[in-house]
Amino acid sequence: MNIAILAIGNEVLCGKIIDTNGAIISREIEKVGAKIVHREVVLDTVDDIVSGLHHAYEYTDFVITIGGLGPTIDDLTREGVAHYFNEELIYDETIYQDIMQHFSRMNRATPVNNKKQAYKFPTGAVLKNNNGTAPGLALDKDGKKVFLLPGPPSEIFPMFDANVLPVIKKLVEIPLITRSYRLYAIGESPAEEKIIHLYEKYPTLDIAPYATISFVDYIVTAKQPDADALDTFEAEFLGILGEYCVGSADVSLNAAVVEKLRAMNMRIAVAESCTGGMLASAFVEVANVSDVFLEGVITYSNAAKVARLGVDVATIERYGAVSEECARQMAVKLQNLTNADATVSITGIAGPGGGTDKKPVGTVYIGIYLDGDVQVYLCHFSGSREKIRVRSKDQALYLLYKLLNSKG
Amino acid sequence: MNIAILAIGNEVLCGKIIDTNGAIISREIEKVGAKIVHREVVLDTVDDIVSGLHHAYEYTDFVITIGGLGPTIDDLTREGVAHYFNEELIYDETIYQDIMQHFSRMNRATPVNNKKQAYKFPTGAVLKNNNGTAPGLALDKDGKKVFLLPGPPSEIFPMFDANVLPVIKKLVEIPLITRSYRLYAIGESPAEEKIIHLYEKYPTLDIAPYATISFVDYIVTAKQPDADALDTFEAEFLGILGEYCVGSADVSLNAAVVEKLRAMNMRIAVAESCTGGMLASAFVEVANVSDVFLEGVITYSNAAKVARLGVDVATIERYGAVSEECARQMAVKLQNLTNADATVSITGIAGPGGGTDKKPVGTVYIGIYLDGDVQVYLCHFSGSREKIRVRSKDQALYLLYKLLNSKG
Repeated sequence: MNIAILAIGNEVLCGKIIDTNGAIISREIEKVGAKIVHREVVLDTVDDIVSGLHHAYEYTDFVITIGGLGPTIDDLTREGVAHYFNEELIYDETIYQDIMQHFSRMNRATPVNNKKQAYKFPTGAVLKNNNGTAPGLALDKDGKKVFLLPGPPSEIFPMFDANVLPVIKKLVEIPLITRSYRLYAIGESPAEEKIIHLYEKYPTLDIAPYATISFVDYIVTAKQPDADALDTFEAEFLGILGEYCVGSADVSLNAAVVEKLRAMNMRIAVAESCTGGMLASAFVEVANVSDVFLEGVITYSNAAKVARLGVDVATIERYGAVSEECARQMAVKLQNLTNADATVSITGIAGPGGGTDKKPVGTVYIGIYLDGDVQVYLCHFSGSREKIRVRSKDQALYLLYKLLNSKG
Repeated sequence: MNIAILAIGNEVLCGKIIDTNGAIISREIEKVGAKIVHREVVLDTVDDIVSGLHHAYEYTDFVITIGGLGPTIDDLTREGVAHYFNEELIYDETIYQDIMQHFSRMNRATPVNNKKQAYKFPTGAVLKNNNGTAPGLALDKDGKKVFLLPGPPSEIFPMFDANVLPVIKKLVEIPLITRSYRLYAIGESPAEEKIIHLYEKYPTLDIAPYATISFVDYIVTAKQPDADALDTFEAEFLGILGEYCVGSADVSLNAAVVEKLRAMNMRIAVAESCTGGMLASAFVEVANVSDVFLEGVITYSNAAKVARLGVDVATIERYGAVSEECARQMAVKLQNLTNADATVSITGIAGPGGGTDKKPVGTVYIGIYLDGDVQVYLCHFSGSREKIRVRSKDQALYLLYKLLNSKG
């Protein structure tokens, strides 16, 4: 069951609008076991729409168009599809009544140009739009299916869920099963090298790595009859890369850490310098975190490290603010101050300036206090100021995650 | 000067990755006066890449590919382009040295499979990648141009700016002039309604609004001979929407606030609850901010508000932690503690739980201390927990920006 998506409109093409609709709908479609085989953005002229449809039908006989159903003169999807299928567009009074009702609900008169939205194909369904004026249209001709959906997110998603997804589900013969694995502390290349032989060994599985700033996610998909393959694969995959696996790609590391702390009945506080609040924000991102996350201090200046946390001036003078000793004191003093069960400190050089030969940009110390013990980790990160900060935050979460797991 | 973009990869096609790269590069291209006429996403097989190239060259002879230059076996862009142009890929020792250097800078051995990234076309440029392993490639054959760019944002944008944009600029006959305006505290629809008559009045200008979580950016583009129109338009546009304008779309609000504080020789500290470090992080995002940003405290729990800042227990008991009184005390007590010239406090209900009839989810108080005065602002935001937090942070920056500007 293969599907192509055709997004229509200058705003999407010129990059003014990012094609989030297409991505979200693609995900929904892949979730139920169908496959997106082609996605294209074309200008809103009849010629370009027709050319886009020709190309899309080279891949599959099921096409979804997005956008171009509005009331303005550059909304030409209906016309383009009609032209491609050699169909007429006919005026439908019932659709127009719906459009007028939509405006009257907002106490507004129906603008004249909305009349063009009341046209439909002689055959095929009209998809009701409960959140806007443009109805969707469906057409099934010469063995080719097309669904015309409106562009605004608030209109397309309810319409897609109600009218298109059920049709796709029926057409999918073998639903897919997907599992995902999130790896940390290993790059895409080294990970791939370790499991490259599994690609050949499991030809019925689709194995796809996906790297972000800090993680490598593996998404592995199997057709139902091969569900066993997925189990065998998983055992082998985790046998090789299990030490790097921090869970599935759906669960973020911060949520996993919060869950773990909650299960252990522990409360946490953080002290940050170069990350400047990113670590605290990662905790607060998790809803209902108040039983776990106490507070954070962002002691960016040396004065704040001394005044807020009580780091010794002598320590900073002797070792520098970016040092094992300073990270250790930040974690310990924060624990004294807050009586938290766990504290995490981060101090580092995010750049672009401030690096030295001994401590180049990317040098970061992470301190973790847990159960009366303090561990300090020296890390070296590369990339922009932003990346070094994100990687420091993720590394702190990872170290804490490992440490908590080792405590049981 | 027409350009087509071909994004390559299952992750983009299946919607796991939203094609932000393509949109951003499209905008850059349109800014300098070239036009995006086609954009397409294809699966990472040689057949699909070849088919995508065939289709793209129907629109123009200038194609940019994105992605598929990685080291893994599903990275097949080089192979697909070579196949389309009937070219051989040849190994290049210099490229491989660069890749090995990249790994040695990170103190890592070069994985075997990165060797495939050292292949190039017999003719055409190799585009150096300063932020990753995969070099870009360029090819100019049979009157057709193609640029192969890597997928990761940190790699593609510097490479595009250095190697592709200059080529496009040279090919554009009439360069465009662009100005941008960032609006805050007004939605896209109301803004559009106020200036809709300007679209007809200035037919030689391309006027394009672009909405993000907190802002509406207007990008206005003129061909050189119409530069005067841009001046007249700007006067009229700002006459109508000037009160919402916080600068151009290129300068972020946090950088503008830091600049302003520095010019006024002021130092700042922040106290956050629901934003949990986002505001502090927005300051620390700006490089060399240590002369301006002192510190932040994230007093998420009530206990932390009392212990760290000295907010009165009675105040929290009487008015609640999300209250004008609490926001006021957070700002004032933080000033007492840090002796900062300005302090900002944020306390609110980000949801999804915790709302009441009187204080629904999205209720946020922002306090600003400046020159011995404290102002507290009550705000109501909508959206997810994440959106409410981002909007609170941006609102705080905006209020501070306005207040600093009013002081001169």
